[in-house]
Parts: sequence; structure tokens; C-alpha cells
Amino acid sequence: MREPSRPPTFSAEQLEKARDLAQRVLAGERRAVARAISLVEDGDALSAEVVSRLYECTGRARTIGLTGPPGVGKSTLLSGMIRECRAQGLSVGVVSVDPSSPFTQGAVLGDRIRLSEHFLDPGVFIRSMGTRGHLGGLAEATLQAALVLDAAGKDVVFVETVGVGQSEIEVASIVDTVVLALMPGSGDSIQALKAGVMEIPDIIVVNKKDHPAADVTYNEIRGILALNDHRGGWEAPLLTTNALTGEGVAEVWEQIAAHQEYLRAEGHLDRRRGENLEKEVLALSVREVERWLERRIGQDPRLDSVLEEVRARRLDPLSAVRHVLKDVLDISA
Amino acid sequence: MREPSRPPTFSAEQLEKARDLAQRVLAGERRAVARAISLVEDGDALSAEVVSRLYECTGRARTIGLTGPPGVGKSTLLSGMIRECRAQGLSVGVVSVDPSSPFTQGAVLGDRIRLSEHFLDPGVFIRSMGTRGHLGGLAEATLQAALVLDAAGKDVVFVETVGVGQSEIEVASIVDTVVLALMPGSGDSIQALKAGVMEIPDIIVVNKKDHPAADVTYNEIRGILALNDHRGGWEAPLLTTNALTGEGVAEVWEQIAAHQEYLRAEGHLDRRRGENLEKEVLALSVREVERWLERRIGQDPRLDSVLEEVRARRLDPLSAVRHVLKDVLDISA
Repeated sequence: MREPSRPPTFSAEQLEKARDLAQRVLAGERRAVARAISLVEDGDALSAEVVSRLYECTGRARTIGLTGPPGVGKSTLLSGMIRECRAQGLSVGVVSVDPSSPFTQGAVLGDRIRLSEHFLDPGVFIRSMGTRGHLGGLAEATLQAALVLDAAGKDVVFVETVGVGQSEIEVASIVDTVVLALMPGSGDSIQALKAGVMEIPDIIVVNKKDHPAADVTYNEIRGILALNDHRGGWEAPLLTTNALTGEGVAEVWEQIAAHQEYLRAEGHLDRRRGENLEKEVLALSVREVERWLERRIGQDPRLDSVLEEVRARRLDPLSAVRHVLKDVLDISA
Repeated sequence: MREPSRPPTFSAEQLEKARDLAQRVLAGERRAVARAISLVEDGDALSAEVVSRLYECTGRARTIGLTGPPGVGKSTLLSGMIRECRAQGLSVGVVSVDPSSPFTQGAVLGDRIRLSEHFLDPGVFIRSMGTRGHLGGLAEATLQAALVLDAAGKDVVFVETVGVGQSEIEVASIVDTVVLALMPGSGDSIQALKAGVMEIPDIIVVNKKDHPAADVTYNEIRGILALNDHRGGWEAPLLTTNALTGEGVAEVWEQIAAHQEYLRAEGHLDRRRGENLEKEVLALSVREVERWLERRIGQDPRLDSVLEEVRARRLDPLSAVRHVLKDVLDISA
């Protein structure tokens, strides 16, 4: 194993603490899982140490991304899917990064009551990621939290994100299966699918099927999917649900299972995961570079002078980019 | 003026050509403008040389971003605003980066006929940016094209982008005023505004005001804006239009003018432009780093080995990021 390039600031005591916490996560201890994810969310440097120790035990969970615009009922749908999993004896972990989700601070009382059955179930671990209050990025925190839940032995890990057209968090690169939830009235997302500005996910669900416009919405999306060239691969199924009553939710879970089966056949799963991990490492590296550059503003006279020249219209933005790459980052593009 | 860190590959002849083209753009020659933007779109290295020579003459145009989901009628609205500008004797440049826009290849015949009045007007220059076929990024190309039009003396430069929830191109950082166009049925975007996952733009337009649901949409957005804390600054106006008949379009143009006035008062415009340019340089630098990293896959054994370790679950993604930053990019985060 490659030696982690850890910051040299950890004391022997801290490393011992990280080792101990990792062991307890691997044993599936609920409080350890909560503690590890809190470290992740706080951007605590020790969390990276913990996750690095867990990583070799990840990759066992089925990971599912649930994305869609605010208000379509993602959380209620998720709640129904958790129930399906539990009925099949599968343990579940949830990371929610939707600021409008009832799993987060913005919970409406009714929602919390509806979801409370899962909060009390020892086989379910639900955690929302705040969009504030952590030093690292939300994307890193989400990935790390999902890895913790995977390492803790959860059979299924859901990642709930808010996505309108394009996801705020690129959930696709950290999960095996992407489920897009829409509803009657999701005109913008449907137009985005039609215009090709939004990628076709693995599964599409139209929630609120009791709504009078549900059929129109269903047919509109079906028309788009019919034109989609799935290249002989997975053909994204379109399902309807009424998450409030639970109608159709079992079928969504069946299709998720079918997609996972499809991925396993002929090694698609390994390939997808390999590609995802590669994309994720590059994306997170680039974000780190961005943060690094932002921190250097006001600190690095070369960077400040380049930016000042641009503001004064003496140096054009693209030449400035070349200067940043060459003088500040010392790479030649 | 800082010496542009130009690639050393330009011959004296090429530099002469760039100088000549830049001069002709500054003189407002239509063919030169077209040629310069073609170079930009093709990702031709010479385009950077041309734009670097134009840059000191930019900053005179009013720049307006028009964004919104596909299908809301952005292009028709834009067409109406161009008419307003022309009636006031203002020359206009348009960069359209909406793949679903009639200004691009996907034009519906009726749209093209409707817009053809502007194509033939020498005071209007319209150019769509393809999403393929250029080596550089779309964001760079859009910025560069807008700079060319500004330098060519256009009084007003519009940048049309498709945006669903979050813009594909961060148009906000290259323009003075952002106009978001929605329509009845734009449920997802409205939910995204409400949930705070989409930023409040400078001006919101509800197009297709003759639609039966237009009032509901209008009131919904008004409710969101009423709750928005504009910190005593610009209060985003909400307007309705019927772009097909031209109804309400003059008012949109008035509000754009009012916003530009607001920006000019107390130096807001300079500050916003300065911040925009800074953001843009950092964002484009980061994108260049991303491309640089992608090119190194399969070329740089250190990068390949890091990615292989991650795929094999021997090195966790965040430790991998640290390796990429330290070993491949040689910066310590």
C-alpha cells in the first residue's frame, strides 16, 4: 500500500484515535459511524486519515444516487425505497445533500414524522450534509461520507442530491445507479432532457402520479427516451410513483436491482466504478487547485499583479490564465 | 503592458496577421469580426493573440446575459430586445451558446425567418457558439467572442446561454446584467429559486404571458422575490412578456438600462466587472488545469499509478488528490 501523504501534524495519539475509530466503523458501530461522518462534515483533517484506513473495505455496498429538482418528493420516495430495502433485510445508509430536503435542517414537521420510522431503525443510518460549516468542499464530504457508510457494512447507500438540469453535486460519479425523480410540472427538466443539456440518467421516476398532468408528463418523457440512443446498452426505464402512498416504489427498487444486475454482467460494474473513481480524483484535485488559488489571492504578488493587470485592461483574461499556469502553478498548458 | 506569455510558435507573418485582424476588428469591419470569432471558436492559438491586442479597447459595451431553460422563448425575447436597441440607434452583438437556440444549427425554419431581419442588419452581429468542434473550452470561447464584439464597438453585447437551475456556462461572471427568462411550466426553476439552489438574477422575465398559467407563475416568483434579502441594493424586477407579439419587451430593455444605471452609480459597475474578471481568470485557470491533468492520463506514470491504486482500493480518493497535487502538480494544498 502506498504511504498516504498525510499532513505531518498528527500526533501518535491522534493517529491512534483515527485507527480506533476506523476499526469501530468497520465493526459497524453506529456511534463510530456518526462520529466519522461528523469529522468529514467538519472538514477535520483527521477524517481523511480515518477514511484512508476504511477505503480498502469499501466497494461492497450498492450505491444509488437520487437526484431531481426541489419539491418533487425525493425524500418521500427515498423513504419508500428504504422500506423496500428493509423488507428484504438489507441495511441502508443515506447521505442527503439537498438543502431543501426534510432530512436536513429545513425539515417540515410532517416530513420528519413520516421519516422518523427510519431514524429509529438500527439498520438505517441517515445523515444530511449541511452546505455550510465545513472547511472542505461539499463534494468531498459527500464522497467521504458515502465511503464511511459503505465501509460500515451498509448493503445499500443512497446519496440524495438536488439537481435541476445539472446536478449541483455530480452525483453520477460517486454512485453505481442514478435515479432522476421528476413530477408533473417539471417542465424545465424535461426541456433540458429533450434539448440534450441534461444527461439521460439510469432510471427516471415521475412522482405524484395522481396529479392530473401526470400522464402528459409521462408521455413527454417517454417520447424523449424513445429517441435516446442507448447504444444497445441499458435502456433507462420510466416509472411512475405516488411516494406518499407507496404506489410504484417497489417497482423503482426492482429497476434499481435490475440496473445493478446489468452492471455486474460482463464486468460493467467494475468498469463504471473505475471510471467514476478516476473522474472523482481528477474533479476533486481540480477543486483543490481552485481553493489553493483562491487562498493565494492577496498572498502571492505574482497572482495579485496578474489579476490587477486584467482589471486594468492591460492584460487579457486568457493571457492572464497562461501567466497563472506558468508563473503561479508552474505548469505549461 | 505585461508581455503576453505567447506560445513561441508564431511566425512573424502570423503575428502580422493577428495585428492586422485586430486593427480591422477595432475598425468595426464585419468580416474581420466574423473571422476573429471563427478563430476563437476553432480554438486557434492565434485567436488568443488577436484578443490580447483587442482587450485594452474592451469594457465599453453594455453586456447582458440572457439565460433560462430551453423552450422558454429566449431567442424570440432576444430578437425583441435587439429591435429595441436598434430603435434607439444602438449597435448589437450576440453570442449564443444555447444548443437548443434557433440561432444555432437546430434552428426551426419559422424562427430563422423571424430572426432574419437581424441577420441582414449591418448594425447587428449574431454568432452562435457550437458545443463541438473547437479545441478550447466553450466558456473561454464565449468570453473571447464577447470581447471581440465589445472591441468592435458594439454598444450592447448579449450572451445567450441555456440555464436550468444552474447555468451550463457561468454567464454571470462575464456580463454586467443577468436576465433570467422563465415561462408558465418552469416549475423546476421556480422551485430551485425558492429552495435557494439557484441564485436570484438581476431581472426575471416570465415569457408567454398569454398562457393560462402565467398569473400563477408570476405570483409564485413574486412571492420568492418578496422574501429575497437584496441588502438594500438592486431589487430584481419581475416582468411579463409575450415575446412573439413583442408585448412587454420594451419594459425589459428599460429595466436592463435601469440596472446598468444602478451599477454605474457609486462605482458598482467597475467593482462588479473587476470581480467578474478575477473570477473568470481563476475559473478558466482551473479549467486549464483540468484539461492539463486529463492530457497527462496515460502519459505521466505518477498520475497513472495514483489512479490505478485508487481503482484497486489501495489508495483512497482524497489521499490520491493529495498525491496529484504534490507529485503531479507540485503544489501543497
